[in-house]
Amino acid sequence: MAGELPSARRTRLLQVMAAEKLDAIVCRLPENVLLLTGYWPICGWAFAVLSSQGEAVCIVPDTEEREARDELSDCALASYAFGTKEPVDQLQEIRAALESTSAGRRWRRVGWEESFETAAPAWNAAESLLPAGPTRRVLEGVFARENLVDVTRVLEIEKAAKTPAEAEKVARSARISCIGMTEFCKTVDAGRSGVELAAAVESAIMREGTGFDDARRVRAFAQVATGPEETFRAWRPAEITTTRRLREGDIALLELAVVADGYWCDRTRARVAGRASERQKEINQIVSRGQKAAISAVRPGVSGREVDEAGRSEIRAAGQDRAFVHITGHGLGFRYHEAMPFLAPWSTDVLREGMIHSVEPGIYLPDFGGIRIEDDVLVTPQGAQVLGPFPTDLD
Amino acid sequence: MAGELPSARRTRLLQVMAAEKLDAIVCRLPENVLLLTGYWPICGWAFAVLSSQGEAVCIVPDTEEREARDELSDCALASYAFGTKEPVDQLQEIRAALESTSAGRRWRRVGWEESFETAAPAWNAAESLLPAGPTRRVLEGVFARENLVDVTRVLEIEKAAKTPAEAEKVARSARISCIGMTEFCKTVDAGRSGVELAAAVESAIMREGTGFDDARRVRAFAQVATGPEETFRAWRPAEITTTRRLREGDIALLELAVVADGYWCDRTRARVAGRASERQKEINQIVSRGQKAAISAVRPGVSGREVDEAGRSEIRAAGQDRAFVHITGHGLGFRYHEAMPFLAPWSTDVLREGMIHSVEPGIYLPDFGGIRIEDDVLVTPQGAQVLGPFPTDLD
Repeated sequence: MAGELPSARRTRLLQVMAAEKLDAIVCRLPENVLLLTGYWPICGWAFAVLSSQGEAVCIVPDTEEREARDELSDCALASYAFGTKEPVDQLQEIRAALESTSAGRRWRRVGWEESFETAAPAWNAAESLLPAGPTRRVLEGVFARENLVDVTRVLEIEKAAKTPAEAEKVARSARISCIGMTEFCKTVDAGRSGVELAAAVESAIMREGTGFDDARRVRAFAQVATGPEETFRAWRPAEITTTRRLREGDIALLELAVVADGYWCDRTRARVAGRASERQKEINQIVSRGQKAAISAVRPGVSGREVDEAGRSEIRAAGQDRAFVHITGHGLGFRYHEAMPFLAPWSTDVLREGMIHSVEPGIYLPDFGGIRIEDDVLVTPQGAQVLGPFPTDLD
Repeated sequence: MAGELPSARRTRLLQVMAAEKLDAIVCRLPENVLLLTGYWPICGWAFAVLSSQGEAVCIVPDTEEREARDELSDCALASYAFGTKEPVDQLQEIRAALESTSAGRRWRRVGWEESFETAAPAWNAAESLLPAGPTRRVLEGVFARENLVDVTRVLEIEKAAKTPAEAEKVARSARISCIGMTEFCKTVDAGRSGVELAAAVESAIMREGTGFDDARRVRAFAQVATGPEETFRAWRPAEITTTRRLREGDIALLELAVVADGYWCDRTRARVAGRASERQKEINQIVSRGQKAAISAVRPGVSGREVDEAGRSEIRAAGQDRAFVHITGHGLGFRYHEAMPFLAPWSTDVLREGMIHSVEPGIYLPDFGGIRIEDDVLVTPQGAQVLGPFPTDLD
């Protein structure tokens, strides 16, 4: 499979560049370097340049050259001095590398990532490197301000549909997420805290996921809400994991992001400490029916609104639609959350073959708590293919 | 201590704003929202506004309002609709909130973070939110382009010296890092892989660090190199952790970032699987002597070059200065690595009371491997105070 990903992706990118009359695209956000070159930067100091002639160059700091060489295919490699002891003006180094890459080309339209305000971290997620003012000024210096074109929307549309090789990478992340969900199911017990559960899930994924199907760099970010009050509010993106300890009969709700070599998945499972009550089972079944109905509606040509309604109507039929307080899903793969497609009551996004998106209905009731079931699906001509299937039992 | 942090910091910020003739500062990077308000954003959608009159407002999505209210002190709270089911134009919401905050003020110089290209993640490190083109256009719309001033350098200089309350928060992160280093020392053994060690360290810190001295949100990022080849190259920022298994006598080198409620520390320890050899002990002692000499040189008024030379000369005396291939240290606290001070042969940064920086000499030899010892110190009138002291034994 090595080499397949850049070449199928390369063909599509060149078509988009022709349609947009772009002479080149220059990126530094890790997710876009991955898109253009197949290489997921370790620290975020890498740049990728793709010309409309099909020449691709990845420019990395010399400290990252070895790994980049191993992982790049169908792409030239250039490096600049990072400077660990001597003082180096890295922006000047990057400018020189970009000038050398573009020398004599007379590019008139150069795409760059001006409007990305949401970004996936590089492998080293403890610190992000951003294309802010200084990068913009370097690009203006090399390519001239009037030649720079914001291709944020173009890239977001183009990334939404994955190539088969990219889809397989996201599917691998979803399979790795099952390691974490298995650990979660084994570990949910009265007396355990949300923090303990999140730590156990993340640890299992790094430990057993690294090396899984040749994945080299694997990391998980888990959030675990426990008990009625926390899980009732656990639809919020701003959920935090606490030291509250599970009591017998409490729901634990796991929200899980996994990244393997730059490809992300997004899962959610609920589990009960001890035996699930009839009421918990009933709500879980309604959520599960809603999810199945939404998944059944997925196929190329269907709108995000229609898929949302397919699941929501099932939950409405059970009288719980007011408790389903969020959208049904979002695109993902190069990022934990991508800009499209959205599956929502207001969405006009149309599903295309190769898109990957979450399907994640949930019901949140005061005094009861919240249950959400989230899986990621690939849009195929035959409908949705669930990536990394995993049981939804509460106990 | 609640309330002390914003007010000491507030006084200093207002002095800086007066010196720079700034009417207000507007920030959205998590580390700068933390600096201005004492609140560490959960997701990165928060904005902070501080006026030269001393009024501070934190603007958060409504999904994050509850936690922000708990953690803010001496700062007003405003919120905007995040939109989880209904379609919301978040930038328009943010614009309206900023307009309401600044209504009638006639601010002529508004500082913003145009040139931050390195940034700490928010609590949810799986996805970063950046002040890119759209944020810039919102700020230009609210404050007029000609009134916006890039305060990146001003903030970096101001952040370098911590208030006593901030220094205590970084010290707490350093104490929490000892949990991870203790786990590391217990776990280094023949047969264990770098990935297993990193997972164990991160897991212990999340599990036992959350709640430690009231820390609410704690996360660690560990990198573990093992054996001669990996540790020889483990001075690189682009180091990755692999599934290679430790053999008897191998060095394991832990590079560790810990964040607790937005305050970062940065540690490194080496450990040998089984018994350390005489040669390993000798190199470890040279590194340790170099670190002690550098730490002894720390005091207000001394330059980063002088501290670097104090440690480097010790390593030179042992004939190993060519193997010490990197700088001695860097500022940190609001981020894993801050822009100043640098402790390096070329550094003209002058240490000031309240600065926090790493001291991390290392020796890397072919066929042998690498040993680095890294601690974080607070610059006090009496010299360096090591935060979270921890033994440096190899076995």
